[in-house]
Amino acid sequence: MSQLTHLDETGRAKMVNVGDKPITKRTATAKGKISMAKDTVQRIRTGSMKKGDVLSVAQVAGITGAKKTWDLIPMCHNIPISGCEMSFEIEEDGVTITATASTIGQTGIEMEALTAVSIAALTVYDMCKAVDKGMKIESIRLVKKTGGVSGDYTLEEMDQ
Amino acid sequence: MSQLTHLDETGRAKMVNVGDKPITKRTATAKGKISMAKDTVQRIRTGSMKKGDVLSVAQVAGITGAKKTWDLIPMCHNIPISGCEMSFEIEEDGVTITATASTIGQTGIEMEALTAVSIAALTVYDMCKAVDKGMKIESIRLVKKTGGVSGDYTLEEMDQ
Amino acid sequence: MSQLTHLDETGRAKMVNVGDKPITKRTATAKGKISMAKDTVQRIRTGSMKKGDVLSVAQVAGITGAKKTWDLIPMCHNIPISGCEMSFEIEEDGVTITATASTIGQTGIEMEALTAVSIAALTVYDMCKAVDKGMKIESIRLVKKTGGVSGDYTLEEMDQ
Amino acid sequence: MSQLTHLDETGRAKMVNVGDKPITKRTATAKGKISMAKDTVQRIRTGSMKKGDVLSVAQVAGITGAKKTWDLIPMCHNIPISGCEMSFEIEEDGVTITATASTIGQTGIEMEALTAVSIAALTVYDMCKAVDKGMKIESIRLVKKTGGVSGDYTLEEMDQ
Amino acid sequence: MSQLTHLDETGRAKMVNVGDKPITKRTATAKGKISMAKDTVQRIRTGSMKKGDVLSVAQVAGITGAKKTWDLIPMCHNIPISGCEMSFEIEEDGVTITATASTIGQTGIEMEALTAVSIAALTVYDMCKAVDKGMKIESIRLVKKTGGVSGDYTLEEMDQ
Amino acid sequence: MSQLTHLDETGRAKMVNVGDKPITKRTATAKGKISMAKDTVQRIRTGSMKKGDVLSVAQVAGITGAKKTWDLIPMCHNIPISGCEMSFEIEEDGVTITATASTIGQTGIEMEALTAVSIAALTVYDMCKAVDKGMKIESIRLVKKTGGVSGDYTLEEMDQ
Repeated sequence: MSQLTHLDETGRAKMVNVGDKPITKRTATAKGKISMAKDTVQRIRTGSMKKGDVLSVAQVAGITGAKKTWDLIPMCHNIPISGCEMSFEIEEDGVTITATASTIGQTGIEMEALTAVSIAALTVYDMCKAVDKGMKIESIRLVKKTGGVSGDYTLEEMDQ
Repeated sequence: MSQLTHLDETGRAKMVNVGDKPITKRTATAKGKISMAKDTVQRIRTGSMKKGDVLSVAQVAGITGAKKTWDLIPMCHNIPISGCEMSFEIEEDGVTITATASTIGQTGIEMEALTAVSIAALTVYDMCKAVDKGMKIESIRLVKKTGGVSGDYTLEEMDQ
Repeated sequence: MSQLTHLDETGRAKMVNVGDKPITKRTATAKGKISMAKDTVQRIRTGSMKKGDVLSVAQVAGITGAKKTWDLIPMCHNIPISGCEMSFEIEEDGVTITATASTIGQTGIEMEALTAVSIAALTVYDMCKAVDKGMKIESIRLVKKTGGVSGDYTLEEMDQ
Repeated sequence: MSQLTHLDETGRAKMVNVGDKPITKRTATAKGKISMAKDTVQRIRTGSMKKGDVLSVAQVAGITGAKKTWDLIPMCHNIPISGCEMSFEIEEDGVTITATASTIGQTGIEMEALTAVSIAALTVYDMCKAVDKGMKIESIRLVKKTGGVSGDYTLEEMDQ
Repeated sequence: MSQLTHLDETGRAKMVNVGDKPITKRTATAKGKISMAKDTVQRIRTGSMKKGDVLSVAQVAGITGAKKTWDLIPMCHNIPISGCEMSFEIEEDGVTITATASTIGQTGIEMEALTAVSIAALTVYDMCKAVDKGMKIESIRLVKKTGGVSGDYTLEEMDQ
Repeated sequence: MSQLTHLDETGRAKMVNVGDKPITKRTATAKGKISMAKDTVQRIRTGSMKKGDVLSVAQVAGITGAKKTWDLIPMCHNIPISGCEMSFEIEEDGVTITATASTIGQTGIEMEALTAVSIAALTVYDMCKAVDKGMKIESIRLVKKTGGVSGDYTLEEMDQ
């Protein structure tokens, strides 16, 4: 049975030594949704048609958030990020956020993609909270990962 | 109809001027859950009974994350945080995370509580992802806020 | 003759003690320009009419940069920022950037406004450098300051 | 016609994927000037002859600023910096600042050099603003770049 | 018997709520020493007489480090620092470092002074390690604290 | 006689160019101690047996501190850390802290190990200062380094 590698033999946390792992190209895609009142969606949509600011700010926040992952998640390695892209899909009852991040290295890049989605969702919350405090951030999950020793990963389709 | 105060008249984002708002004691409580395989819950629980590291690390990450809110969410003010507490409830299919943060000032403290929950959840994901990539971060939401001009807020009970 | 207050009697730097200064409302406005080829201006303008991304990203960068001033400028105090707004004026040969920041406290807020303009200009450079390496950041200056013991300041009109 | 690579096909910003670019040794030199009253220059010069603090602090700020470039400029990659050197030339009406930064990697290092100059100039402003609010940061520009796919770049001599 | 206030009733850490404490002027002084080979002291001293860079850089690092205390020490509050001064005494077998920091608020300022000394000492180590890996950072301690509910504190003289 | 490589020919500091050094696997171990009253040791020990929070928090702080070394020590390079482990030994009159960090690169990893120990010690101070202000951080030192051009280093045994 594979182990929680972040815990050492005494049960304490450590930053796992990845120095002997091979260098590979790695890509991860994460998704999440922030659900909200229809009126709030409408405001974002209208803003989007003007200058799109809520989602533009969220996008910048997600990308800069991905770069801070090592500083936010205590046992994460500080890795160079080769690229990061985000997209937003406005739905009837909220906004679905997708982030894809990539690296060339010995570890990563799931947490960077998940962090990008989380910070983008929090930013949407922040920018709309004056009109809607009932928003919820839902279902932040890894949908795909390629590269790395443990092989590729794809979330089962019904959960994507 | 109240406005998206983060957008100026041209539709661009700004950091709202709170300089004329009264100083009040403000408290916010946020909740969220990370759902996972039962086997993963079991590993966290067992670890908890030894040295509790997954949740201890998540707790530290949540509190330090709350202090970085201003740096993560572009239009958030940099406010002094009076206190921050977190608790974790281990359930059959995951862990529920609660954070309460407080400040004395002219704005805040919802985003700090929501950020604490989000970063703690991401940390749990990071520390368990070697055994379970299918975890999902669910239902991050504001459950209560007191203080401030706009009055107290409590999420309707069925959603808490 | 007033002194360089950042230097102590041995000529070393220090972070000046502002603990005895009165608390006042303070506002500062800074300006600067990034000059560039006409073709580059045209690309930004066209982008602006679509989704405005170069300037949207620069605006977010300027505001988040203002919040990092204390971390960038060694002898600056870490002060709470009440608000920060930025505007961009697209001209024939470049973009003029204006930032206004405010605080309620014992010191500041010139450096925050100047930092916002500087970081926004660097961001424009970054986003356009693939097509124009000859851009120049010009004339970053304080145009107005109100509040504080030393009185209000306005740059002479011809220099504004 | 080469494109603004930071914008994706929908006009939104992204962090460009550099994962397929070759690894090369890269060096960039940037320059800028902070102009000021002659009396202010004289104070810096005198300070310099004692302990040189204004410029010493500016130099440290520039180098540490270069290391924060990825955190300041939203679409910049977080790259390892091999080295960074700065020099200051005291002139009659101001101080000229030069920064040279280098990296071995797939992208960079213009923004790091430009950021070093900008933050050093802001630091000089901060340390002298008690005696001279009329200082201006002028002509921050890239003067040379070597390495990378797009070839070397040298600013035309009259602009250096 | 007074308690470890950072631990809640279940033994977990929290960021103590200071929202009900009175606002007072607070000052703390910390000291420490980095001991080294006499030859290394000599190099620092000579450098000091030229441009003093080792200690100038250490001083800037200490002051900027003090401002990052909230980000380094997980349960520390993010407080505004009114001022911070450092001094260095070159001795026969090392350098003694003193930092005094002050705030006006509900908590602090011991950790900021202790952090300033620690980071300054680490910086001296970094800048001299090419010639002396045997340096030791010794006896970092709080020597004085004024302000706050618990009263003033002075380290017994023989330990200062 | 080897030189203080951080100083350039004019005596100013620089970030040394490591671009021509070979890439090697590097490991460093640092140690330090925080001495305290026996009663304070007893409280930590008891806490340890419950949930171990003082040392758990210190451990997380040390590891996250190691990742911030480049941001704390002005002339340090920003390097990727392959791994970091910490251990704590509770003694009669204090706690001994050991950190081992590793990297694969052209420079480092002494400062990261020394920073981890320093930040962990400061965190212990912070969490126990309500009951014991007389704690001292003692003897932070490099005990071992492997990898790199200058060869391996081991502190003489009596000083370990």
